[in-house]
Amino acid sequence: MTASGSSSSCGACKFLRRKCTNECVFTPYFCYSQGAHHFAAVHKVFGASNVSKLLMKLPLQNRSEAAISISYEALARMEDPIYGCIAQILALEQQVTILQEEIEQLTSYMAYDPIGLLNYESFQEIGDLNAGLPSSFQFNNTSISDHLNQPLLFAAPHASFF
Amino acid sequence: MTASGSSSSCGACKFLRRKCTNECVFTPYFCYSQGAHHFAAVHKVFGASNVSKLLMKLPLQNRSEAAISISYEALARMEDPIYGCIAQILALEQQVTILQEEIEQLTSYMAYDPIGLLNYESFQEIGDLNAGLPSSFQFNNTSISDHLNQPLLFAAPHASFF
Repeated sequence: MTASGSSSSCGACKFLRRKCTNECVFTPYFCYSQGAHHFAAVHKVFGASNVSKLLMKLPLQNRSEAAISISYEALARMEDPIYGCIAQILALEQQVTILQEEIEQLTSYMAYDPIGLLNYESFQEIGDLNAGLPSSFQFNNTSISDHLNQPLLFAAPHASFF
Repeated sequence: MTASGSSSSCGACKFLRRKCTNECVFTPYFCYSQGAHHFAAVHKVFGASNVSKLLMKLPLQNRSEAAISISYEALARMEDPIYGCIAQILALEQQVTILQEEIEQLTSYMAYDPIGLLNYESFQEIGDLNAGLPSSFQFNNTSISDHLNQPLLFAAPHASFF
């Protein structure tokens, strides 16, 4: 019997080919149709033991979100062994930059042509005001190395969860 | 002697308290002042063995970027054991949504008031055109569960790197 009361094992125990007990830390988070498949990725990327330790250190109410975020990272790393989910962060950062430039351009247009004499398409053709806008969404323009010094990750003291 | 020719060990070998040899897969990627500190996070989150296997499966020219992205993920998970770097993806996605809504609002304003009779601040006060704009940047409004079905990560066959 699993912790959930069913006679079948959770996805983690199915993958690890072991008996699922009431003490299984993975049961609540890998009991779904793709559970074993997702856990396979989690085990390959993080290791079942590391993930078990991480979950056990967290309050019960946070474990579900943690299991999902870990599964997400693991599957991203399986799909893209070089960048994993960092590829998505870089792409989103570039998208934010492009959108911010678009807003800046729109507000410049509104300030430049407050009474609407010029249409926006004509305004966009004005070279000097348009110089900062990237011509395309180029992932490779961003260096992943830049991210290692981001204050978001390195300013605060590291949490101890192991 | 390390692979880099210096007499000191690389950050990984310093952390693992082992002799650094020419065959050490980590030397080129953890030989910097914070190398041992970053490797400690990598080892705790992913396990040295898993990361070694991942790097060995990659072409040499991709290993540096992979080591950086793995360090980044590991440090993010140490800082935020529940969400890790997924927190950044969720925050960036919300920022993109807000910026897209801002652009939509600016273009609506330009269409609504083509000859500039109304200033933008007054336009923003018009409730029905402004209804979709979120009042604040609320991280918890996005459910991480939604991401598990994203085509980006799950549509393509998984790469085999172990």
